[in-house]
Amino acid sequence: MYNFARNLPASGIRKFYDLANSLQKQGHDILHMEIGRPVWKIPQQMKDFLNEAMNNDIYHYMDNRGDRLLREVLCNNIYTKTKKKYNPDTEIIVTTGASEGLAMCALALLGHDDEVIIPEPAWPHYKAVAELAGAKAITVDLPSDQDFIIDPAEIRKVISSKTKMLVLNNPNNPTGAVQPKKVLQELANLAEKHGFYILADEVYDHFIYDNNCFISMAEIMGSSDRLIYLNSLSKTYSITGWRVGYVCCNPILSDAFNKIHQYLTVCGVSTVHYAVSKFIQSDKNADFLSKMIQEFSRRRNVWAENIHSCGNFSYSPPSGAFYLFPRFSYAGLNSEQFCEYMLSEEHICMVPGAVFGAGFDDHVRISFSGTIDTQLKAQKKLMSFFNKIKGA
Amino acid sequence: MYNFARNLPASGIRKFYDLANSLQKQGHDILHMEIGRPVWKIPQQMKDFLNEAMNNDIYHYMDNRGDRLLREVLCNNIYTKTKKKYNPDTEIIVTTGASEGLAMCALALLGHDDEVIIPEPAWPHYKAVAELAGAKAITVDLPSDQDFIIDPAEIRKVISSKTKMLVLNNPNNPTGAVQPKKVLQELANLAEKHGFYILADEVYDHFIYDNNCFISMAEIMGSSDRLIYLNSLSKTYSITGWRVGYVCCNPILSDAFNKIHQYLTVCGVSTVHYAVSKFIQSDKNADFLSKMIQEFSRRRNVWAENIHSCGNFSYSPPSGAFYLFPRFSYAGLNSEQFCEYMLSEEHICMVPGAVFGAGFDDHVRISFSGTIDTQLKAQKKLMSFFNKIKGA
Repeated sequence: MYNFARNLPASGIRKFYDLANSLQKQGHDILHMEIGRPVWKIPQQMKDFLNEAMNNDIYHYMDNRGDRLLREVLCNNIYTKTKKKYNPDTEIIVTTGASEGLAMCALALLGHDDEVIIPEPAWPHYKAVAELAGAKAITVDLPSDQDFIIDPAEIRKVISSKTKMLVLNNPNNPTGAVQPKKVLQELANLAEKHGFYILADEVYDHFIYDNNCFISMAEIMGSSDRLIYLNSLSKTYSITGWRVGYVCCNPILSDAFNKIHQYLTVCGVSTVHYAVSKFIQSDKNADFLSKMIQEFSRRRNVWAENIHSCGNFSYSPPSGAFYLFPRFSYAGLNSEQFCEYMLSEEHICMVPGAVFGAGFDDHVRISFSGTIDTQLKAQKKLMSFFNKIKGA
Repeated sequence: MYNFARNLPASGIRKFYDLANSLQKQGHDILHMEIGRPVWKIPQQMKDFLNEAMNNDIYHYMDNRGDRLLREVLCNNIYTKTKKKYNPDTEIIVTTGASEGLAMCALALLGHDDEVIIPEPAWPHYKAVAELAGAKAITVDLPSDQDFIIDPAEIRKVISSKTKMLVLNNPNNPTGAVQPKKVLQELANLAEKHGFYILADEVYDHFIYDNNCFISMAEIMGSSDRLIYLNSLSKTYSITGWRVGYVCCNPILSDAFNKIHQYLTVCGVSTVHYAVSKFIQSDKNADFLSKMIQEFSRRRNVWAENIHSCGNFSYSPPSGAFYLFPRFSYAGLNSEQFCEYMLSEEHICMVPGAVFGAGFDDHVRISFSGTIDTQLKAQKKLMSFFNKIKGA
């Protein structure tokens, strides 16, 4: 077997998901804080549009780049949000989730002499696909005590002649950080000056809380050929199982990406493309999004409004996405041991910080995409646990 | 940009598909013989099951390996057909079409020191993904005048210590050849003796004509760890746009594949998995399949029963799949020039043989997956064209 697959670690998120499920089968009541999916129902109209696709017999192959109408709708959406106009025929590819989009970019763009800068903590896929393509991942630890905001000077230090790409996940999984405009502008300047691409993964761009200001990299780098814009409908419309991501970039790059895309998956699911393109255009779209974000704000506020920080457990309320990334300290355990302990003893399932970067072994990721009730129970359980230690 | 994507040719099939569509937009009536998709409607019950999935709110993430029930149904099906029992928990992964299955195998299994034997003519994806993974494709031309049946002695000649895999597409795209049991057995023996894997792509296994006998490699190599079994529901159920493929193999390999699968696409479309698993189990399944195959036999028989072979154009009736791969000769044109000529002058769209292997530049691929009427028109047009030359 090829070394890469043999040495690749199994997903740390999946490990705890499986452990939690096996405890649940034994009859235990588990608080699932490990899953990054919106527990939210899609509106009836989306279901009706899927049905309409079937009635129109839309279930055959389509263009590699995806349904033409969906591409147009997505490009229009990006324009509305960022004033960057992508051409639906030549500058967008609809992929099997953001995951395929990312793998496609890596396999098309990266080779053995290339380096990819990845600010950490980060979704583990970035490093994995860079290495799958033969490139080297150069990680830069972000400061936990400064809410994981990027310091462009720290990025500049690791730029070399081999730097081909920087990954910018904003809003961030797992930290919930939203990068300020000044940081985005400085990173864009570095990309231009040193000639590397910025892969801007903005799949959480609808999940912004309080008065935090999210600015898309497409707004900052609209006129540059150096931007690769990655997004997805999975989180936004609570359709993680429909696998709809998309990648926008300049037409030369897009053409190269499309060749790889064609060999990875040929095209997306035509029935689904029809349904989502119709729904996004419908008058129910804005209402659905605003209700969902209101609800996610409530879930997030359970954590934001009741910060019982103590020496052993601390976090700032996240600005975006639907994760907390608290620092913890307990009995000298590392993050994997701590998560194992909390799952088996307290029946609360979290993801070890080390999954998102070796430098974050004293953190855990808590997803607040579950119900309000789940948030309240999990918070109570964690606070009671840490207060007990404090008092001991 | 990485060399691989830059140097990769655009798909030859796609090129003619696009050319044909642009002529059609100009008002020409084009006979589409280039497309490899069954023009066939799915039964109402399949649509009802998709609707049922929506009513049950099945549109979120699922297991990486795919819906558990679907995996069980598919493994049971393979058992019924071949007596090989795969474990639905550890030996099968449902992929985004056979394409992702193939890319996943290549990226997990192949490295820079490996060679992959590909009998040609062959679907161009095999060579492309082998090279994407850094491996070397070793092609072996099959004899056009012996109905493209593999001679294991010719395969033996190219086996080296670097041989990691042999691709066996049976029934074959583009030739329609179905390999006899003796050939399969000898290839299996070679795999065992020399220690390489056989990737058996059997996506056309339901499309067998007359009394031809198709034998699955799973029946021959059931007890061997050397078999990688690839199949898909796309052609069988006429749902090419639903993207459901699957890969079965030993659990160690399957675990390695699953790691790559997770980074390529995470998982398939849960709504679709639900619908197809229910349909395959339903009492409508057998009836649907038998009616479709009857209809495809009629399409194929238009070509089988009216062979007007002349020096300039000759073919044998295919045993399986839904393609003809005739040899042609016209005015010294190569296959691409001939396809361009026939499209622009005769408005019949075919795929150049060179797309499937450099040694087949005097062949074209004709898909008979269109209606009977299309077959009759295309045949009449081709025969009239070649008879005109003959008489001239």
